[in-house]
Amino acid sequence: MKRIRAYGIIPGEMEPGPLNKITDVAGVTVGHATVNTAEHKTGVTVILPCEDNPYKNKLTAAAYIHNGFGKSQGLVQMEELGTLETFIALTNTLNVGKVHDAVVDMMSEQCEREGIQVTTINPVVGECNDSGLNLIKERIIGLEEVRTAVREAKRDFEEGAVGAGTGTVCFGLKGGIGSASRQFPLGGKTYTVGALVQSNFGSTKNLMICGAMVGRELEKKTKPALLDRGSIMTVIATDLPLSDRQLKRVIKRAGVGLSRIGSFMGHGSGDIMIGFTTANRISEEREPEILTIRILKESLLDTAFTAAAEAVEEAVLNSLAMASTTVGYQGEIRYSLTDLWLSGLSTADLAAADSIN
Amino acid sequence: MKRIRAYGIIPGEMEPGPLNKITDVAGVTVGHATVNTAEHKTGVTVILPCEDNPYKNKLTAAAYIHNGFGKSQGLVQMEELGTLETFIALTNTLNVGKVHDAVVDMMSEQCEREGIQVTTINPVVGECNDSGLNLIKERIIGLEEVRTAVREAKRDFEEGAVGAGTGTVCFGLKGGIGSASRQFPLGGKTYTVGALVQSNFGSTKNLMICGAMVGRELEKKTKPALLDRGSIMTVIATDLPLSDRQLKRVIKRAGVGLSRIGSFMGHGSGDIMIGFTTANRISEEREPEILTIRILKESLLDTAFTAAAEAVEEAVLNSLAMASTTVGYQGEIRYSLTDLWLSGLSTADLAAADSIN
Amino acid sequence: MKRIRAYGIIPGEMEPGPLNKITDVAGVTVGHATVNTAEHKTGVTVILPCEDNPYKNKLTAAAYIHNGFGKSQGLVQMEELGTLETFIALTNTLNVGKVHDAVVDMMSEQCEREGIQVTTINPVVGECNDSGLNLIKERIIGLEEVRTAVREAKRDFEEGAVGAGTGTVCFGLKGGIGSASRQFPLGGKTYTVGALVQSNFGSTKNLMICGAMVGRELEKKTKPALLDRGSIMTVIATDLPLSDRQLKRVIKRAGVGLSRIGSFMGHGSGDIMIGFTTANRISEEREPEILTIRILKESLLDTAFTAAAEAVEEAVLNSLAMASTTVGYQGEIRYSLTDLWLSGLSTADLAAADSIN
Amino acid sequence: MKRIRAYGIIPGEMEPGPLNKITDVAGVTVGHATVNTAEHKTGVTVILPCEDNPYKNKLTAAAYIHNGFGKSQGLVQMEELGTLETFIALTNTLNVGKVHDAVVDMMSEQCEREGIQVTTINPVVGECNDSGLNLIKERIIGLEEVRTAVREAKRDFEEGAVGAGTGTVCFGLKGGIGSASRQFPLGGKTYTVGALVQSNFGSTKNLMICGAMVGRELEKKTKPALLDRGSIMTVIATDLPLSDRQLKRVIKRAGVGLSRIGSFMGHGSGDIMIGFTTANRISEEREPEILTIRILKESLLDTAFTAAAEAVEEAVLNSLAMASTTVGYQGEIRYSLTDLWLSGLSTADLAAADSIN
Repeated sequence: MKRIRAYGIIPGEMEPGPLNKITDVAGVTVGHATVNTAEHKTGVTVILPCEDNPYKNKLTAAAYIHNGFGKSQGLVQMEELGTLETFIALTNTLNVGKVHDAVVDMMSEQCEREGIQVTTINPVVGECNDSGLNLIKERIIGLEEVRTAVREAKRDFEEGAVGAGTGTVCFGLKGGIGSASRQFPLGGKTYTVGALVQSNFGSTKNLMICGAMVGRELEKKTKPALLDRGSIMTVIATDLPLSDRQLKRVIKRAGVGLSRIGSFMGHGSGDIMIGFTTANRISEEREPEILTIRILKESLLDTAFTAAAEAVEEAVLNSLAMASTTVGYQGEIRYSLTDLWLSGLSTADLAAADSIN
Repeated sequence: MKRIRAYGIIPGEMEPGPLNKITDVAGVTVGHATVNTAEHKTGVTVILPCEDNPYKNKLTAAAYIHNGFGKSQGLVQMEELGTLETFIALTNTLNVGKVHDAVVDMMSEQCEREGIQVTTINPVVGECNDSGLNLIKERIIGLEEVRTAVREAKRDFEEGAVGAGTGTVCFGLKGGIGSASRQFPLGGKTYTVGALVQSNFGSTKNLMICGAMVGRELEKKTKPALLDRGSIMTVIATDLPLSDRQLKRVIKRAGVGLSRIGSFMGHGSGDIMIGFTTANRISEEREPEILTIRILKESLLDTAFTAAAEAVEEAVLNSLAMASTTVGYQGEIRYSLTDLWLSGLSTADLAAADSIN
Repeated sequence: MKRIRAYGIIPGEMEPGPLNKITDVAGVTVGHATVNTAEHKTGVTVILPCEDNPYKNKLTAAAYIHNGFGKSQGLVQMEELGTLETFIALTNTLNVGKVHDAVVDMMSEQCEREGIQVTTINPVVGECNDSGLNLIKERIIGLEEVRTAVREAKRDFEEGAVGAGTGTVCFGLKGGIGSASRQFPLGGKTYTVGALVQSNFGSTKNLMICGAMVGRELEKKTKPALLDRGSIMTVIATDLPLSDRQLKRVIKRAGVGLSRIGSFMGHGSGDIMIGFTTANRISEEREPEILTIRILKESLLDTAFTAAAEAVEEAVLNSLAMASTTVGYQGEIRYSLTDLWLSGLSTADLAAADSIN
Repeated sequence: MKRIRAYGIIPGEMEPGPLNKITDVAGVTVGHATVNTAEHKTGVTVILPCEDNPYKNKLTAAAYIHNGFGKSQGLVQMEELGTLETFIALTNTLNVGKVHDAVVDMMSEQCEREGIQVTTINPVVGECNDSGLNLIKERIIGLEEVRTAVREAKRDFEEGAVGAGTGTVCFGLKGGIGSASRQFPLGGKTYTVGALVQSNFGSTKNLMICGAMVGRELEKKTKPALLDRGSIMTVIATDLPLSDRQLKRVIKRAGVGLSRIGSFMGHGSGDIMIGFTTANRISEEREPEILTIRILKESLLDTAFTAAAEAVEEAVLNSLAMASTTVGYQGEIRYSLTDLWLSGLSTADLAAADSIN
């Protein structure tokens, strides 16, 4: 499998980071635990926002509810306090309770090791519904899988039908985990905005790739998804010094990327954006009464907005390009974009695609 | 133990229903599972909003985030869709994941029995932090306890240090579960607004009972709570025909009741209001394209507002009056309001109290 | 000038109404007052939501703040009460105060004629910043202009550089007022979703027309707008029976249409959506205690979502296609899309465009 | 007329600043223009947040919609950007358009004098409905009155039936403008939280003064207000270094103060809180790419919360104590709290009151 840029398809104009993944933001790592059996196509994906303990040094964070038809957890406190204090975990819809409990377990353990007694903690858990391919009601993701995902976390992580993306369906094709990043200079430094998605939305006919209505063609080649439902989880990381309010403005622009690839924010699609910055860590215990934080000049946010929109658009395309054709527990086949379309692109098509971009 | 009215203390002016509990709203029942051991003072309290399956016939519902420093689950979807589709469960802060999973389990089971395949469900779980008295990190509430609570659900349920209120602390005294209701005629019918609280907030000195600054006196008699933290969960039920927007306006007025009893909405107190009406049940499957619902004339909401504020104020007082003195796992004693103050009220005090009200 | 469909460019797949304007929603009319002098390129556009008095029979309504960097008025009450009680007026940024006062004046007058004493009223006034072409600080729009616009209101209204669109700039081209509609059958009836925009946003290079990156070409032909700023006001009308919450979900999807035409929701672009339905009129005075309203089955909202997204995309294209090249008070020229691109499209281009759509 | 403390009535426990007014926050001044004729009892009150130009050096700010049934302007942008860029003006409901325009005029003028070309500006205008005493439909407040109010602004400003409080009614008594402040040490410095209210809410029977149900007594002495409607505008100023999110949390606690004095947040009462801090001024033009701001350690907010609640409670009491009995344009008499109750308090009452506090 190749990522979308390998086909000459390049969403937007900004430069990606070295990995073109959310992990281009220094300190961020991503891990998966994948369950791929006859009955289960599911898993958990964790985004570790920093190398040290996020509970001890909280990250400035924000959530935006694009469409609240979903079961994500931890957003209420994130909005009130503007902080993230755990790693972020993505899984399937019915498994959020067990994964929430696993995060409590692991964070308590880590804190205890560091001499911090935890009596309250706010796990952030997102989800998509993979019940088309996965026997979801059995809720097989638990502490062991979350431990595995955290242990496996690294910068150059896998995409496609892995972790929380093992059983997702996007535009009627096989969806999954995808990522991308954008970098730009500001005041003599280089800053990064990275996105990771768990893609599980879209009706087939609406799939648009860099302006081309590819979905209308694919509709004839596969059993199409007729409704835009299932959800899309978007996590955006940055090292830009932003306040929680500014961060919320940035992650809201993920909707631009989703719209450009064919989302109509369908009723049945719980679309949630979560963002954090590795700048402005907050430590309640050690800090003086008055903290000093750095924020971006508001009028310079435009570049971060574009970066977020572009990275999300490319992240979804990567989730499609990297996902392999998968057969669900009831025999339903969801084809990969690669098998159905990308692999058949001729040199001429690619040249044309290139000129479009 | 006696409820607060038994002492002649009557918050507000409106009439309560026959039980003066949330269960005066027809169809609503409440159950507890209590864990009271040397190490654990905790539990789960469930509010069943209706006798039939709420997943099949959803209830119009709303959430209001008074202070979002909390871990409640299910509010995001409730706000997006304006519906409640499970029973509501209250527990301790670190147990929300396990209780969430238990609700998924039980609701799936119930639905399966009724021939409904559940691949998505939105449990509503609230919490307070009972770590002062309870060894919270062990998260001992699980499926068994939730099953017990549901099985035990009834109209004339217990209050005080039971269920999710077993280990809570309120104004430095023993808090717990409390309830109250208000009824009023409208268009020839009688309508009910009922409240249930899990009380776990307030600094001792701020406790105000019908205008009397009782807390300043109690501060000398017990180890006072100095900070207003810990949370208060408020559930409001009604049979008034309201839209989700109207319901949100009603539950927002719970803050009036909390303020009058001495809350300052402390930073560390996650204050969440959840409301539902048993009017306007919504069934996606069976309904025609266009549904007919009934809503209250907006200008008549004032009575519902007052009812909500009064019921919440009295519910907190009942949670205090009905809670028994409790010793925590580390030996910390939290006295009951009854032991510390109510039982010592003289006839003259009561007469004076009466004249104040 | 011709509308965008005359060039074979057709955004989306749904069918427009007979006029392909917001006024396809029965009862809705639109009027303009245009000020086009050497110094001033500005005006006011009014959307009359019904033929009778909206103060007496309020309309169910909703507002959505896509980007709150703007000065629109009346949204706070609209969100609290879910109603619209005046006509909607659009004008320039610095003129909202005077236009607000004019709406109060005219509505009071109308109510007085009908025997209603008005002591409170909530005018809804939107705005875009036309200071690139218009000497905005002089605020020349007042009661007289609003009266004219209301008097001129009709179903088959003008688009382009008229009314509140006289001085707006969109993607560096001449923007203006544009409109479109979509219709669809439901339960044996035909329903309409119509949109009207005042377009004043977008950086030139980002203009995308049905997937084609037209902006990158136009950037070389005109003085490009480098920043995505200025604002876009979107008004959506429908005759679908919706609750205010449902209506808010519908108008939120306007962002999909804006994204597809090239918006990145720039920092400096106050993007506001306002929606109303002509179903579910609310009359406080005459109604009984309990009103009966009709709402759409939630899962059927998807069609309305797509309709809103498509209508907004086409409305912006119409605002561009119908706007004529305009010279501002400082000599700045903003070319029309027609002069710069549409009029030069060859038959082959049109055929190609057609195949893309 | 005397302020409420002169009667021994002291809400809360924290210390007020030297003036016990919002102007204890350094740099803040308040001015009124009062129209008191046979037909008109109205005016405008302005709060100048700083001595220099707020447009040039914006203030960190927040708005909270306690009850959105009101016509306040400028809140949408304040929420999006977290800044205040004009003085704040309070007036009557129907006059907000004209006052908005006056603020645009004056701010443009000031900016022009300082060499700043203003093409966009966001006036913040609040309102209460004084139509019980004032012939509101004539909207007699305009540029001249706003100019007067700004010119008259000073630290030791008048309270009671002046400016925007000339015609307001509160708990059926004469309301008006009131103010109070609280100070406290933090990290070696003294910080101030000040409140100013335009009081126009409350049903007579609900008036509660430091826990005493005074309203039930007053109900017999005057024509009572039966409904809790009319609105309350609350402006909170501080010099605490806060982020906009923190500031929003602080001003939300104004609701606690309002609840304690007898508000039920009535349907017809548009209750709006606006807050700003004089710390963290933001200047777009002169700043570097990354700004440094100071924020309070989150867990220390509790003192600011209590300060806000107490200051608002006392501000409302001052608005009542300082307002003189007023006869409306239709002959309706609204008595002052002083005439009706305060002046009749005996030494014994005062001693009793004192012991309650």
